[in-house]
Amino acid sequence: MTQANELTASQARAAMDRGDLRAEDLVQACLERIAMRDADVKAWCHLAAKPSLAAAKVIDRALDQASEQPGAIDKGGPLAGLPIGVKDIIDTADMPTTYGSAVYPDHRPTMDAACVALVRAAGGIALGKTVSTEFAYFQPGKTTNPHNPGHTPGGSSSGSAAAVADFMVPFAFGTQTGGSVIRPAAFCGVVGYKASHGALPLYGVKALSHDLDTLGWFCREVADIHLMRAALVGAPAFVSDPDLKMNGVPKIGLCRTYEWDQADDDCQRAVLAAAKNLEAAGAEVVDITLPPSFADLVDSQKRVMAQNAARDLAFEYYQHRDRMSSHIIALIEQGQGVDFATYQNDVAATVAGRAALQGIFAQVDVLLCPSAPGEAPKGLDNTGDPIFNRLWTLLGNPCVNLPGHTGSHGLPVGVQAVGAMGQDEALLAHCRWMERRVLGS
Amino acid sequence: MTQANELTASQARAAMDRGDLRAEDLVQACLERIAMRDADVKAWCHLAAKPSLAAAKVIDRALDQASEQPGAIDKGGPLAGLPIGVKDIIDTADMPTTYGSAVYPDHRPTMDAACVALVRAAGGIALGKTVSTEFAYFQPGKTTNPHNPGHTPGGSSSGSAAAVADFMVPFAFGTQTGGSVIRPAAFCGVVGYKASHGALPLYGVKALSHDLDTLGWFCREVADIHLMRAALVGAPAFVSDPDLKMNGVPKIGLCRTYEWDQADDDCQRAVLAAAKNLEAAGAEVVDITLPPSFADLVDSQKRVMAQNAARDLAFEYYQHRDRMSSHIIALIEQGQGVDFATYQNDVAATVAGRAALQGIFAQVDVLLCPSAPGEAPKGLDNTGDPIFNRLWTLLGNPCVNLPGHTGSHGLPVGVQAVGAMGQDEALLAHCRWMERRVLGS
Repeated sequence: MTQANELTASQARAAMDRGDLRAEDLVQACLERIAMRDADVKAWCHLAAKPSLAAAKVIDRALDQASEQPGAIDKGGPLAGLPIGVKDIIDTADMPTTYGSAVYPDHRPTMDAACVALVRAAGGIALGKTVSTEFAYFQPGKTTNPHNPGHTPGGSSSGSAAAVADFMVPFAFGTQTGGSVIRPAAFCGVVGYKASHGALPLYGVKALSHDLDTLGWFCREVADIHLMRAALVGAPAFVSDPDLKMNGVPKIGLCRTYEWDQADDDCQRAVLAAAKNLEAAGAEVVDITLPPSFADLVDSQKRVMAQNAARDLAFEYYQHRDRMSSHIIALIEQGQGVDFATYQNDVAATVAGRAALQGIFAQVDVLLCPSAPGEAPKGLDNTGDPIFNRLWTLLGNPCVNLPGHTGSHGLPVGVQAVGAMGQDEALLAHCRWMERRVLGS
Repeated sequence: MTQANELTASQARAAMDRGDLRAEDLVQACLERIAMRDADVKAWCHLAAKPSLAAAKVIDRALDQASEQPGAIDKGGPLAGLPIGVKDIIDTADMPTTYGSAVYPDHRPTMDAACVALVRAAGGIALGKTVSTEFAYFQPGKTTNPHNPGHTPGGSSSGSAAAVADFMVPFAFGTQTGGSVIRPAAFCGVVGYKASHGALPLYGVKALSHDLDTLGWFCREVADIHLMRAALVGAPAFVSDPDLKMNGVPKIGLCRTYEWDQADDDCQRAVLAAAKNLEAAGAEVVDITLPPSFADLVDSQKRVMAQNAARDLAFEYYQHRDRMSSHIIALIEQGQGVDFATYQNDVAATVAGRAALQGIFAQVDVLLCPSAPGEAPKGLDNTGDPIFNRLWTLLGNPCVNLPGHTGSHGLPVGVQAVGAMGQDEALLAHCRWMERRVLGS
C-alpha cells in the first residue's frame, strides 16, 4: 500500500479533497520518513516538526468546515495541506537561514521570502530547510544521493532534490544560477522545474547572480508544477490545450547542443531513447542544430555569473571573507577581473541568442536535451558539472528534468525539456504529454 | 565662495585628488548643512554622523599615503571620500531600515544591500538613510520640497531627491517602480538617473514589483552618474565617443508620448524649449510618434505593478496588514485580482514594445520627453503623478532627468532623456552633451 509520504503533491491534494487523507497524517508520514532516512541522506538542515503538525491541524479543520458546506469551493488554496522543503538560501522568518555559509551560522531573517509567504498563503506548510551548497555555488553541503550515499545528489539545491527523491516531502524549492535545479533533479531522479528568468518573485532569496538566478522546485510528477505556479503567480492549475505545432502532440526538437561530446554513454543513450520513444508515441521529432554562436554561450554564462557574484556577494566578500570557501572567493575575484566591455558583450550575446531561439521555437514546441553529463558522479566533494544547464539559464528558458531512465551504475539519468522563454504553461503541457512516454511503452 | 557641500561629486573628487579638499571636511560640511536645514526639509530618517566622520578620516589617511607614493594610482576607488544618502528601502547593516513602513519601525538588517556594500568598497561613505514613501509606493513620508516646503518633493525617493537638491549630500540612491526617481528629480531640480531594468544589483532592496523595480540615484551633474556606475558595475568613469548618429552630436527624437495632454503649460514649454535649444546648439531634432499600441502601456504598467506587489509584499500583507496604509493594501488587493492571462498579455505587450523601440533607436540616439506633468504639486499629502515615467519603467529603458527649467510658480521643471535599453553609457554621453544646452545660451 502506498504510504502518504509517497504520494505526489497532486495525488495528496486529491486524496485530501476526497476526504481520504488528512494533512496532519501526511506531515506525520513525511516526518517519519525523515526520521528513518535522514541520518543517511542528510537532506535537511532544519526541521519545523511541531509547527508543521500544528499548521496541518489548522488546515484539516478548514478542510472539514469547507466539506460541511455543500458547494464551497475555497478549500484553502492550491497547496492546502502540502508540506514543502525550502532550500536554505531562501529566507524564513520562523526558521534559521544559513545560505549554506559559515558567515551566517545563526541567521534568522525578519521576513519570509516572497515565495515562502505565497506558499503559506496558499495553504502550504514549510516543513523545514534543505541543505544548499555555500551561497548556492559549488562548495558542497552534507547531503548524499538517496540512491547511493557514496554519490553526490548534485547541487546547489542538494537537499531539496534528495528530500523529494527520497519521499520525505512531495515538494521542495530550489534555485538555479548555473544548473542547480535540473542537474540535481537528474541525479536524484525527480521532476525538476526552473522557471523562465525573471518570471517568479525572488525577494528574500540570497542572490548569487542577478542576471541568472531563477526560482524552481522539485516534485514527483509534472502536474505538481502547476500547483506551485498557481500559488506563486496565479497561473491556471491545469493547461489542457496549448498552441501545439501538431494536432494534440508536441513537435519536438532533438537538440544535442555543442556540448554533446561531454555527455557520457548513459546520457546520450537516455536522450536518444527518449526521442525514439516519443516518436513511437506519435510525436514528430526533428534534429535541431543551434546557431554556431551558441558554442560560446557557455563561457558567457560563466563570465556573467562571476561578474554578478562579485557584485551580489560584495557585502560578504568585503566583511566576512575569512569565513568563505576558496571556491566562492575564486568566483568573486574572477568576477572582479571581468572588464565591463567583456560583460556587455556577453549581455549582447545573450540578447542575440534569445532572438535566435524565437526562430527555433517557431519550428518546434519543445527542445529535448541532456539534463546532466550522466549519472551522479561518485564522491561527495563536488556536485557535478552544470555544462548542460548553463546555456538555458543564461538564455532564460523554462526547463524541466524528466526522470525515469537508469544509467550503467543503476543511478537515475534524466532528460531535459526546454521551452520558449515566458511560455512556461505551454512547456508544462508538453511535459505532461512527454513525462511517461520518454520511457517507451 | 563655494562651500564643500555645494560641490558636485565629480568636483569634490577632483578637489580631493588635487589635495584641496579632505573627505572629513566634506562630510562635516554636509552634516552642517543638514543641521541647518533638515528641520524644514526632513529628508533624513537616520544620520550616521560619527561613523561617517570616522570613515572620512580613514579615507583621508589612505589618500595622504597614496599621494606620498609617486605614481600610485589606486586612491581608494571611484567614490573615495564621497558621502552618499541611502533611500530607506535599501538595507544597511549599521543603520535602521524601515522601508518607510510602520511594519518595520525598529528593523536592522543583517547585511548591507549589494549596492551599499559596493559603494563602501569604492570608498563611498553612507551618510544616512533618506525618507521613502511606504514600501516605495504612494503613502508619503515627512519630506518637503527644498524649494518650497508647502510642496511635495515627489516620491517615492523623496528624501534622496530633496537631500541632493538642498546640497546636503552630493549623491543619494533612489529606486523607480513607477516614477520614483525621475519625478522627484524633476520636482526638486536635480539630475536623476534610472538604470536599464535588471542591469544593477538589487539584492537587499525591498521589492515592490520584480518586473519593474530599478536602482537609480540623484546627483547634481551628469558626469557624477559615471562615478557611481564605475563603483557598481565597473563601467568606465567616462565615455567620450559613443556611437552617435550625427558627427559628435546626438540625434534627438522629440517624443511627446500619448500622455502629452496631461503635461501642463510649464512642462510642455520646458520640453519644447529644450528641443529648440538643442537644435540651436547643433543637434538634429526630429518628432517621434510612438506606435499606437504604446497608448495602452501605461495601463499595462499599473497592472504589472499591482500583480507583482501582491507577490512581492505577500509576507507583509498576510502577517502585518494592520500596519499597512490603505494605499498599499489597495494596490495589493488590486494585484490579487489581476488574472494570469491579463498579466501574461501585459508581459507580451512589454516584449513587443521593446522590439518596437529598437526601430526607433535605429533612427535617433535619445528621446526627449516630459519628466513629470509640471512643477511639484502643492501639498504634502501626495507625491504627484508618475504618468510620464510608467511607460519607460515598464519598457526598461535608462532615463535621466535633466534639470534647469523653472515653472510659473518658481519651482523646478525637468526634461527627460530616454536611451535604448542596455545602452546606459551611450545615454549618459548624450546627456553630458545635452545637460547645459537644454537651457539655451
